[in-house]
Amino acid sequence: MDRIRRYPDLARSDRSDLDEVLDAAAVGTLSTVVDGLPWVVPMLYARDGDRIVLHGSTGAGALRHVAAGAPVAFSVTMLDGIVVADTLFDSTANYRSAVVRGRLTAFHGDGAVDALDLLSDSLIPGRSSEVRTHTKKELAATLAIALPIEPGCWTVKVRDAPPPAPSANSGEWVGVVPLRTVAGEPEPAPWVGEDVREPESVRRLVAAARV
Amino acid sequence: MDRIRRYPDLARSDRSDLDEVLDAAAVGTLSTVVDGLPWVVPMLYARDGDRIVLHGSTGAGALRHVAAGAPVAFSVTMLDGIVVADTLFDSTANYRSAVVRGRLTAFHGDGAVDALDLLSDSLIPGRSSEVRTHTKKELAATLAIALPIEPGCWTVKVRDAPPPAPSANSGEWVGVVPLRTVAGEPEPAPWVGEDVREPESVRRLVAAARV
Repeated sequence: MDRIRRYPDLARSDRSDLDEVLDAAAVGTLSTVVDGLPWVVPMLYARDGDRIVLHGSTGAGALRHVAAGAPVAFSVTMLDGIVVADTLFDSTANYRSAVVRGRLTAFHGDGAVDALDLLSDSLIPGRSSEVRTHTKKELAATLAIALPIEPGCWTVKVRDAPPPAPSANSGEWVGVVPLRTVAGEPEPAPWVGEDVREPESVRRLVAAARV
Repeated sequence: MDRIRRYPDLARSDRSDLDEVLDAAAVGTLSTVVDGLPWVVPMLYARDGDRIVLHGSTGAGALRHVAAGAPVAFSVTMLDGIVVADTLFDSTANYRSAVVRGRLTAFHGDGAVDALDLLSDSLIPGRSSEVRTHTKKELAATLAIALPIEPGCWTVKVRDAPPPAPSANSGEWVGVVPLRTVAGEPEPAPWVGEDVREPESVRRLVAAARV
C-alpha cells in the first residue's frame, strides 16, 4: 500500500484491471492471522464474477478457521519480466499483482457443486463436462469457499515498462527480459495405454499455452 | 500446515528441499499482521545461506514496521503442472511451495551493499560487476532486510506426481500438463541504439531460461 503512495504509476484502480490480473493466474496465497501471527497457504483459485472461489479439505483446521469468517488477504503475483537498468538501483521487475481483502464465506449444497465445477473449468476449461459429477462423499470432504470482491477492498499493481529513462543515455544496453509460462508436452500417467488420446479439454489447454 | 498432517507425502523436511524451492523462484509474498489484520506484499528476494534477503524503499511505512521486528511469513509458490484425473476431486496441481516464518532484521553499512548486490545477482547473475556501485543517496533510499531461516520455522511442500492411481483403470487419458517459465527475446529500451548488444549477464540469463 505504501508502494502505491510512492509510485502511483504502478497502482491500477479499474475493476477490469483487477479482473485481468485475477483471471491470468491460477494460484494465489491466502493469508490470515492465527493467534496473532501471520498464517499463509498457497491455493488454487478461480474468479466467479464478484468473488474469488477457493477450495480445500474439510479436515483442514486452519481453513475452517478462515472459512468461519476470519479476516483474510488473498494475493496473486505474476513475474512478467526482469528490468535491466544502468544501475542496480533502477533494475527491477515487471509484474502484475493483486490483493483482495475480506472475509470468507462457505458454499453449501448446489452452490458448492457449482463452485467446484467452476474451479476445475478455470484450471482446465471444459473439463467438468468430460467427467462424472461429484459424489456425496467427495462433497463432504471438500470445503468450497468464496472471498467477495468488494469496492475499496482490493489493490492492483502492474509494472509493464522499460527501465526508468536515465538523465543521460549511457550508450549501454538496457531493457527487459520478458518471462512467460508455457505448457509442455502432456505426460500420461504410467497406467494409460499408449494409444489413448488426451481429452479435448487437455488438447485445448496445451494449444493455448504452447510455446 | 493442516494439509501436511493430512497429506504427509507432500511435506519435505530436508533443509536442502527448502533451499531448492527458494533458489528456483525470484518473487515471494511477505505477510505480516498490521492492526490485527493480515497484510501482504509481493517482493523480489534471494537466499543467502541461512537467510532470505529482501529490499524495499525506506519510505514504505509498512515495510519499516516489519523491518522493526514484526512477525512475518514469507511464502513462495511455483505452479509446475496441472494434474488431470478421472474425477474433478482427484484433479489438482503439481507445485513447489515454501513458507519461512520469523522476524526481519535490517542490514546496515557494507552489509546492505552486499545484500543489494546479492539480490541483483540472484535475479541477473553477474550483473553487479557490470555496473557502478550504489551511491550514498541510493543506499539511503533503500531498506535491505533479512529473514533468518531457522530450524522449525519453515515448511516445504512439493507435489510432483501423476494423478492418484484409481482403483480401476477407466481407460481414459489422465496425466499431467507440465508448466514452466521461459524467457523471451530481450526487449531493448526505446533509447538504446540498434547496434548495442545485450551485456554478457543478460545473454547468459536468456540462454539459461530459453524455450
